[in-house]
Amino acid sequence: MNLPDLKSIREAYKRIAPFIHRTPVLTSSYLNRETGAEIFFKCENFQKVGAFKFRGACNAIMQLDRASGEKGIITHSSGNHAQAVALAAKMNGYKATIVMPHNAPKVKVNAVKGYGASVVFCKPTIEARQESADEIIHATGATFIHPYNHPHVIAGQGTSALELLDEVSGLDVLMAPVGGGGLISGSAIASKSLNPEISVIGGEPELADDAYRSLQSGKIEPVLRTDTVADGLRTSLGELTFKAIRNYVDQIITVPEESIIRDMRTVWERMKIIIEPSCAVPLSVIMDNKEMFKGKRIGLIITGGNVDLNHLPW
Amino acid sequence: MNLPDLKSIREAYKRIAPFIHRTPVLTSSYLNRETGAEIFFKCENFQKVGAFKFRGACNAIMQLDRASGEKGIITHSSGNHAQAVALAAKMNGYKATIVMPHNAPKVKVNAVKGYGASVVFCKPTIEARQESADEIIHATGATFIHPYNHPHVIAGQGTSALELLDEVSGLDVLMAPVGGGGLISGSAIASKSLNPEISVIGGEPELADDAYRSLQSGKIEPVLRTDTVADGLRTSLGELTFKAIRNYVDQIITVPEESIIRDMRTVWERMKIIIEPSCAVPLSVIMDNKEMFKGKRIGLIITGGNVDLNHLPW
Repeated sequence: MNLPDLKSIREAYKRIAPFIHRTPVLTSSYLNRETGAEIFFKCENFQKVGAFKFRGACNAIMQLDRASGEKGIITHSSGNHAQAVALAAKMNGYKATIVMPHNAPKVKVNAVKGYGASVVFCKPTIEARQESADEIIHATGATFIHPYNHPHVIAGQGTSALELLDEVSGLDVLMAPVGGGGLISGSAIASKSLNPEISVIGGEPELADDAYRSLQSGKIEPVLRTDTVADGLRTSLGELTFKAIRNYVDQIITVPEESIIRDMRTVWERMKIIIEPSCAVPLSVIMDNKEMFKGKRIGLIITGGNVDLNHLPW
Repeated sequence: MNLPDLKSIREAYKRIAPFIHRTPVLTSSYLNRETGAEIFFKCENFQKVGAFKFRGACNAIMQLDRASGEKGIITHSSGNHAQAVALAAKMNGYKATIVMPHNAPKVKVNAVKGYGASVVFCKPTIEARQESADEIIHATGATFIHPYNHPHVIAGQGTSALELLDEVSGLDVLMAPVGGGGLISGSAIASKSLNPEISVIGGEPELADDAYRSLQSGKIEPVLRTDTVADGLRTSLGELTFKAIRNYVDQIITVPEESIIRDMRTVWERMKIIIEPSCAVPLSVIMDNKEMFKGKRIGLIITGGNVDLNHLPW
């Protein structure tokens, strides 16, 4: 598998543009004043299914030939990728099956079913998920869409940076959180190709600093704990995203849980938009390192807005 | 005191346009599907101070002559009007004093102080508020800015409907919640003057149905309870807003608390924006009376996004 290049990201954009939202770019005079920087928030929380993940899933599924698609689409996820695959499959007239742990929150199960996908429950381990998926693939010939370690998914995720750089000129820095690495990979490839001078910085929770450690050790390090509040970032890198990060990302900076919760709340209160904890991570990187970002024009990708309103972290 | 007309609302808009945000109009395919209508949400939660109230306060304060302004601005409010007056005064270089009950939430007191206003505390009764304000007016010659029963405030509040009708053509219905009536008055005057065919419908909580009862009895009826979750709507009409509502509003429809909480939550979950409970009231009117609104193009003013994230109603 090869990494996508700017050309594939542009093709992805052309392919998915009629089906995605061109999400707004918001600014906050309060946060600009607080940080001394100028921050442009690319709001993928307003994307279909409430997260950037729809871009990648849509791009991957639209590139399947009809015969493969009709054998079905499958993935395992209890997060935004599940909903993204469910909706993208439905829009293409394909049947999607989502493997989820039997203890997945009911609201997430219902969201996936709401997009017309079938849910297959498994034990809540990584092995059990893959086994269940493999069984179904074996039986039906369905195509597996990986949440991040997939060139078409990475290309799709890169399209939000493409929109952002098209809309806001002269960015010094591009920032995104790092989970499995699909978003930061696509974003870094797109923005470094368009502007080699731009600095691409990933944010990670201290409690899930696997990408930070991977860059240091030179090999993919596992996530050691899964208790960060940034529930979208509890995943390790894949071969492909690790390669992209090594080649295109300048730096990964980690932040503590308190900062993530504080800045998530600040965005809710000041910008009046619902963001997931993961989105706050790059903002916390800025807030906790103000000198580093002073006077810079920063593009920051807000990844999604799917939160359980009954369990807020404050 | 006379009601403003379309001309005064247009002049207000010209006056305040450089200082306000032109707020976005959002749509939700989910809510359109659910209601069978086409709803255009005019998002004043993204307005300065997080609420439409800034428009009215700004318009009123900008019309003071310099000498009066320099004697100071005063109001009593523990809500969005307090912050609106504080910021509008500051932007004009005037000193603002806000009379607040001593048990006002600390977050609201701090917000007002954050905009540079002085806070004077009083006993938590309507009489005590007015007395404290009168004392200060007597001593300083400060100008009192009423939260709604004031032609310049009403004209300012009408400017959001002006923007909405400019941006979205062919609206059949314009909707807003009714508290003291400043917003619905300005909106109704603006939209009926621009399009006499448009239907203007106000929404009220059943627990604060004073405007509904006032229209029936032909005189201003008091709010009988102050326990509705829609904390922005716990006020009775003034002479001026009652006159505007009688002349320009087609109908006021009331909704129960459960609907308000349900629809506030739906907007958070589906649209990923933070809205106050008051904003959900007109949406609940649609959700609870779907047949009445089927196939209509509806403009709905989202009044504000200032909520206490530690005390959500679900």
